[in-house]
Amino acid sequence: MAESTGRPVVDLRSDTVTKPTPPMRAAMAAADVGDDVYAEDPTVNALEAHVAELFGHEAALWAPTGSMANQIALQLLVPPAHELLCDADAHVVTYEMAAAAAYGGISTRTWPAVGADVDPETVAAMIRPDGYHAVPTRAIAVEQTHNRGGGGVVPLATLRALRGIADRAGVALHCDGARIWHAHVADGVPLKTYGELFDTLSVCLSKGLGAPAGSVIVGSAERMARARVIRKRMGGGLRQVGVLAAAGRYALDHHVERLADDHARAARLAEAIAPFGVLAGPVRTNLVPLDLSKSPLDAAGVAAAARAEGVLVSVLGPYVGRLVTHYEVDDAGIDHAIEVLTRVLRG
Amino acid sequence: MAESTGRPVVDLRSDTVTKPTPPMRAAMAAADVGDDVYAEDPTVNALEAHVAELFGHEAALWAPTGSMANQIALQLLVPPAHELLCDADAHVVTYEMAAAAAYGGISTRTWPAVGADVDPETVAAMIRPDGYHAVPTRAIAVEQTHNRGGGGVVPLATLRALRGIADRAGVALHCDGARIWHAHVADGVPLKTYGELFDTLSVCLSKGLGAPAGSVIVGSAERMARARVIRKRMGGGLRQVGVLAAAGRYALDHHVERLADDHARAARLAEAIAPFGVLAGPVRTNLVPLDLSKSPLDAAGVAAAARAEGVLVSVLGPYVGRLVTHYEVDDAGIDHAIEVLTRVLRG
Amino acid sequence: MAESTGRPVVDLRSDTVTKPTPPMRAAMAAADVGDDVYAEDPTVNALEAHVAELFGHEAALWAPTGSMANQIALQLLVPPAHELLCDADAHVVTYEMAAAAAYGGISTRTWPAVGADVDPETVAAMIRPDGYHAVPTRAIAVEQTHNRGGGGVVPLATLRALRGIADRAGVALHCDGARIWHAHVADGVPLKTYGELFDTLSVCLSKGLGAPAGSVIVGSAERMARARVIRKRMGGGLRQVGVLAAAGRYALDHHVERLADDHARAARLAEAIAPFGVLAGPVRTNLVPLDLSKSPLDAAGVAAAARAEGVLVSVLGPYVGRLVTHYEVDDAGIDHAIEVLTRVLRG
Amino acid sequence: MAESTGRPVVDLRSDTVTKPTPPMRAAMAAADVGDDVYAEDPTVNALEAHVAELFGHEAALWAPTGSMANQIALQLLVPPAHELLCDADAHVVTYEMAAAAAYGGISTRTWPAVGADVDPETVAAMIRPDGYHAVPTRAIAVEQTHNRGGGGVVPLATLRALRGIADRAGVALHCDGARIWHAHVADGVPLKTYGELFDTLSVCLSKGLGAPAGSVIVGSAERMARARVIRKRMGGGLRQVGVLAAAGRYALDHHVERLADDHARAARLAEAIAPFGVLAGPVRTNLVPLDLSKSPLDAAGVAAAARAEGVLVSVLGPYVGRLVTHYEVDDAGIDHAIEVLTRVLRG
Repeated sequence: MAESTGRPVVDLRSDTVTKPTPPMRAAMAAADVGDDVYAEDPTVNALEAHVAELFGHEAALWAPTGSMANQIALQLLVPPAHELLCDADAHVVTYEMAAAAAYGGISTRTWPAVGADVDPETVAAMIRPDGYHAVPTRAIAVEQTHNRGGGGVVPLATLRALRGIADRAGVALHCDGARIWHAHVADGVPLKTYGELFDTLSVCLSKGLGAPAGSVIVGSAERMARARVIRKRMGGGLRQVGVLAAAGRYALDHHVERLADDHARAARLAEAIAPFGVLAGPVRTNLVPLDLSKSPLDAAGVAAAARAEGVLVSVLGPYVGRLVTHYEVDDAGIDHAIEVLTRVLRG
Repeated sequence: MAESTGRPVVDLRSDTVTKPTPPMRAAMAAADVGDDVYAEDPTVNALEAHVAELFGHEAALWAPTGSMANQIALQLLVPPAHELLCDADAHVVTYEMAAAAAYGGISTRTWPAVGADVDPETVAAMIRPDGYHAVPTRAIAVEQTHNRGGGGVVPLATLRALRGIADRAGVALHCDGARIWHAHVADGVPLKTYGELFDTLSVCLSKGLGAPAGSVIVGSAERMARARVIRKRMGGGLRQVGVLAAAGRYALDHHVERLADDHARAARLAEAIAPFGVLAGPVRTNLVPLDLSKSPLDAAGVAAAARAEGVLVSVLGPYVGRLVTHYEVDDAGIDHAIEVLTRVLRG
Repeated sequence: MAESTGRPVVDLRSDTVTKPTPPMRAAMAAADVGDDVYAEDPTVNALEAHVAELFGHEAALWAPTGSMANQIALQLLVPPAHELLCDADAHVVTYEMAAAAAYGGISTRTWPAVGADVDPETVAAMIRPDGYHAVPTRAIAVEQTHNRGGGGVVPLATLRALRGIADRAGVALHCDGARIWHAHVADGVPLKTYGELFDTLSVCLSKGLGAPAGSVIVGSAERMARARVIRKRMGGGLRQVGVLAAAGRYALDHHVERLADDHARAARLAEAIAPFGVLAGPVRTNLVPLDLSKSPLDAAGVAAAARAEGVLVSVLGPYVGRLVTHYEVDDAGIDHAIEVLTRVLRG
Repeated sequence: MAESTGRPVVDLRSDTVTKPTPPMRAAMAAADVGDDVYAEDPTVNALEAHVAELFGHEAALWAPTGSMANQIALQLLVPPAHELLCDADAHVVTYEMAAAAAYGGISTRTWPAVGADVDPETVAAMIRPDGYHAVPTRAIAVEQTHNRGGGGVVPLATLRALRGIADRAGVALHCDGARIWHAHVADGVPLKTYGELFDTLSVCLSKGLGAPAGSVIVGSAERMARARVIRKRMGGGLRQVGVLAAAGRYALDHHVERLADDHARAARLAEAIAPFGVLAGPVRTNLVPLDLSKSPLDAAGVAAAARAEGVLVSVLGPYVGRLVTHYEVDDAGIDHAIEVLTRVLRG
């Protein structure tokens, strides 16, 4: 990414662009490693035990990406030709290239996406029982925080209602928790509280946490044993991957609580551009969703104009954009972004 | 199906229970046949040409069931790992045992089902373009008439709006027209008018039309050539199946216009039980959807009580039932059903 | 199929071309029927019970084609991502359009095909156990008689050896018995003896037996219950299909023992053309496999020349042809075929 | 892995156990990185360009594992419901957990595995053309060197014959080149020469080359663009993965030619144990395949006895074992292994 004006680019496209910090690199360089296909990598094993403990589950399994972690979990919970329910904007049916259907043979029906929240009764009414005629529902997936839902946080009360519904129907509940750390920081809900509400969770060590790559699936020991086989089938059985697990552990130890700073910067940025009528929803965490349908420029136009001044914006649709804060964007970066974006949005 | 009271059972569970009539059987017995895997069955070939002509398409292909016809069409229109949009109650994601995902690798997202109608703008907003990040939408499916939508008819204006949306987005439009004959009779829309709005249609010769089995897929010659290969893969390449095609042709020639009688009987039945507050929606065709959540008996209870007096009712959920009229239910049958059901619903 | 010379065409392409006879049509016309999706078709139910009894199994299930019957059986025996072993010319990996992999997610490895027979030790050495590393073998499929193996019969001793191997390895054994009737007639092995050697069998009522369509899967009651669900997913849940089941029952009652005539005619045909060096193997049943690599004409050439004189021959490869006898070819037809083919093969 | 006797364990199970060396770790720590999902990681981009150049292809794509690299290539070359031919011991149908069938819907038929070599005529005879009846063959896969074939090298003449066969049939040729470096070193064949014979190759930077993880797929620019989408679907789109690519580049620059040492050590080891009659085949590279069917101890027994003295051996079957040399096993390690194994094998 070239610099356009001599000053550092402020990359607000996504928190996935974060690079490992020097101490994180040092942790990687010093990591004790082994062959993780044989479960002999001590750094991976320790990370998995740590994340299982964080969420109060029996076991955990490292996976190279959040997409793979989610898809492994879905394949664990939903046999081929059975059904998953999720919202129509969920990452698992939007950005994972249809792996659930194409690789898992999993049928999906979706409820309408409106921000991050979910109406539990809507979900309850969609569940179908086992039987000869209709496709049986086997799992419900919730995204916390919700990516296309503007980084919104699903309230704990909603999650508890869904857990009750899932229990009564005998279906499983999965959390796509790629950014669950943000929900934990924003709402102050302990990770273990989230953990006890779900059968499986996938959590990401990259994105806002900053590891170069890596996610972790959490669940029962029996499920994690089957997850190892599915991970191998997906091509996710890496060897001395403790070098990445070390980065993940560093991120967990040092980059979770600091997300509050990213949230504050996102709120400041949102407040500054709110007068232009471009906020697509409330800003609770590090995502600022943009609705540019009433702006002088469309999403591509805003992105191009901002890029010319060193500010990178995501284009998610003709009139849909997004700003994301993360640890490579400091207060000065936010100042610069506000200055550039107010000029661009004014038209 | 035993008779309980000495008088004939009135089977209102489904129009799928209809048996071939004597003249239909005679047509079957006289059918000229050949090996249809080699496309050498003259009766099948004539039927396919006739149905293609009815809907104004280039070609058609017989299939043993409506489920297979739909699934072949979906596999034609949507490659694995691409997306189909339909409503959450559509037959293709409800009653076809997840074949779209499990066999076609097709990802589905659904809009909320409210009767038979569709809000075209809701559908338009769900379409996703080709690209590297999100699952590309390739087709939209509409059900006419809508089974779980109480036999409702999708208005022609809605279908025209969807066609425009599909054209602008470059996606295909499929009609699950298992009961399109009912829409044709109820709304007076010519079959060719329906035909020109869709890329593919599947239409059923069984159900209300009364052939023992058989559906037909309609589309372009190129698509129907590929459909033959998919049909073979699904196990639908039968040999001297002109014996069934002859029944289908008889049904088309003699059983379409008479559906108006079934509609009238369904309306009479609905009117009689409406005072009990059990109609789940308006009755436009031969289906009478029941919402028994406020009845003295639940769906299983109503079905058991009615069965004891020779009236068979479908149970689709704890409080969801259904009555279906067809050519084996005459006016006397309706009289008897009204007598029994009013007694049962009174509690 | 036009007649070329005023006399009836002798269609030796396949026994699939057989049309229902007048008494078979009468049986169809008189069949008592019901909705087989609800298991209410008495003729289907009786046929299934009869075929289960013939092979000494608990239960059976009608399917519209032999391909669907085989694929349902394979999906019953082999979960997705597990392995089936069969020979490299087996119908299940050759002519069923890759349904095992594409719909069942079933991995296949094959042993070399040499006629119909199998070396049990070769098969035993290929089996792989359950475990984390290699794909676990779950079933072995055998074809009786073997289509591409020239209608050859797998000897009973071979089948018994395979049963022992399967038992020791804990894998299932499936028989693609589309033409098992021919093996029964040729070798005099009782159907029950075949039945007790396999976990599942698929047997065909069309082909040499002459029903217009229909196959039956045989196995345990538990497996057949699951088979109904898979059949529905494959689009094979037909309604009043007793009209076809009646033809199947007629075929079983009247067309099995007469296969000996077809075998005798195939042997006479083979003897007549043997001097031209075109027999690809011994002729045991109703198939005469041709190797035309040393003939004056290739397979297409032979087929074209014979067709011009009213004899139809199958082309299976550039130099591979096939002749098949069945109940529509009588002694005069064989005489004519011999006369034509000797002239054509002479060059 | 504990040490049993105070001296370092000699791990001969696999070359996958190799850990990154200090200079390799330094290269990782210094790597310039970016978001590779956006193709913005300079180290990954440079590695891909370098590997494409090594094999004389247009483009390349990094993948986290050899299994994923192979499966992406197979999905590129073979559409669902089409066919791949390979040998019955190939890694792609043995150790990749049936992903080709389960995720790619790819049908496989196999030729018998006898060491690494292939009879081109056997392969040619198995190819089936496009068409309506039989499953069309789309690709042939060859493994170089061959893992279960004892590290054997497929001769260049064989590969050239296969290329000719593939061209004449219009099918693609894939090389599972996880250990192609060993073939290059053993036979002196330039990588570009291998490159020009295949449509796609997958090559591994882990295993004998020693990177902690990572493989590369090589092919045309058009195929690699599609490969990116498939990689994302498989869950292989990592972010700042230049940290692993840097290790891979270091391995390519420093660890290829030294494989000759591993080969020499494997040869010395093989020579020493040959008198016990346990070599399953000739030793050409770094693998020593063991056939223990005539030994006093079976494979598990040999492995346990050797492990007790600090030598680790792979158990691949009841009587099948394997020794693998790599850069963590030096001459002293080989001396110790010879001493222990001769004692164990003597019984």
